Amino acid sequence: MHKSAANSDKQPRTARGRQTLRKLLDSAAAEFGERGFHEASISTITRRAGVALGTFYTYFDSKDAIFRALVADMSEAVKQAAREAIEPEMPPLEIERAALEAFLRFAGEHKEIYRIIDEAEFVDPESYRAHYETVAERIRERIEQGAAGGQFRGDAGEVEAWAVMGMNVFLGLRYVIWRKSDDPDEARIATNASVLLNKGIGPSG
Amino acid sequence: MHKSAANSDKQPRTARGRQTLRKLLDSAAAEFGERGFHEASISTITRRAGVALGTFYTYFDSKDAIFRALVADMSEAVKQAAREAIEPEMPPLEIERAALEAFLRFAGEHKEIYRIIDEAEFVDPESYRAHYETVAERIRERIEQGAAGGQFRGDAGEVEAWAVMGMNVFLGLRYVIWRKSDDPDEARIATNASVLLNKGIGPSG
Repeated sequence: MHKSAANSDKQPRTARGRQTLRKLLDSAAAEFGERGFHEASISTITRRAGVALGTFYTYFDSKDAIFRALVADMSEAVKQAAREAIEPEMPPLEIERAALEAFLRFAGEHKEIYRIIDEAEFVDPESYRAHYETVAERIRERIEQGAAGGQFRGDAGEVEAWAVMGMNVFLGLRYVIWRKSDDPDEARIATNASVLLNKGIGPSG
Repeated sequence: MHKSAANSDKQPRTARGRQTLRKLLDSAAAEFGERGFHEASISTITRRAGVALGTFYTYFDSKDAIFRALVADMSEAVKQAAREAIEPEMPPLEIERAALEAFLRFAGEHKEIYRIIDEAEFVDPESYRAHYETVAERIRERIEQGAAGGQFRGDAGEVEAWAVMGMNVFLGLRYVIWRKSDDPDEARIATNASVLLNKGIGPSG
């Protein structure tokens, strides 16, 4: 599915090993997502994965290690979801719209991502910061490409990238995690955000 | 300073009582901010406040109770900080700029606010959600006032309010909590965000 995030010296070399690692990470996502870091345990993760307890240590040294690997794995999965939604020939604004819609859909299918990334602030602050710095850097690169092509303002950069990321994270929090029955769908939310990003909130015309 | 947030049946009736409650909340902010909810204890909070351990229970039933009161207290303090920066006669866009600058300054003086609000997601999810829903609702009301006056788009509402809140939270995370030495100051960040909100990221002219 996406690049594994285990310790580099414990990377599986076989297809079967990669499959076991994937099962462990998916079980860890479910377990940390439902019960939180402190309540989750290595034995519940392995039981859920249908993997022997001893096998866990072939891949990870500790609960902290699999949590850290999971944050990197989810960060990579978010990146992939956006990448698959983007075509290089799209105009810069449409790229941002498509990336947000893809993120909202991804979050809807992986609702645990909010709890896990947010808990990283306490369990593994470096992973937490690395996740957001990496996402912001990708947005900044896209914004600067748009500016270079004359479709975005020439002075747009890092501040705008963090603003866009914050918009996206909070729109997901409200319209995916705390979704209400009559809320607009992902496409509508992404379109509204795109209008805001394109023209701001000023009166039209 | 601002409305106390203790259990309503434990509200202090005297000035001295209110002062003790204030000391307890300020110590709790420092203690939860530095050590997190799980490491903090009632005895370290009272020691820090210079208040007898028994006195704590005049105001709060438990560590959970003072944490919950602290989240409400900080939420109220953020609201006050924005309110003091806003003049009713300001144009709607200037109100948003001033509110963001005030929030960034407040966060700079109370850096623990991020850790405490963020930890509420795990310690007291209802307070966490209530905090953001309340802030978003205030922004939505301001946006709808701006729209009613013709200075914001008529269709702007809840989606735009959550987008603005997300921008503000992440600009504070990057430029206050993770501040780097050569970063722009609060006024500059707020002005950049205001330009984005006003006209979007499209090329000017």
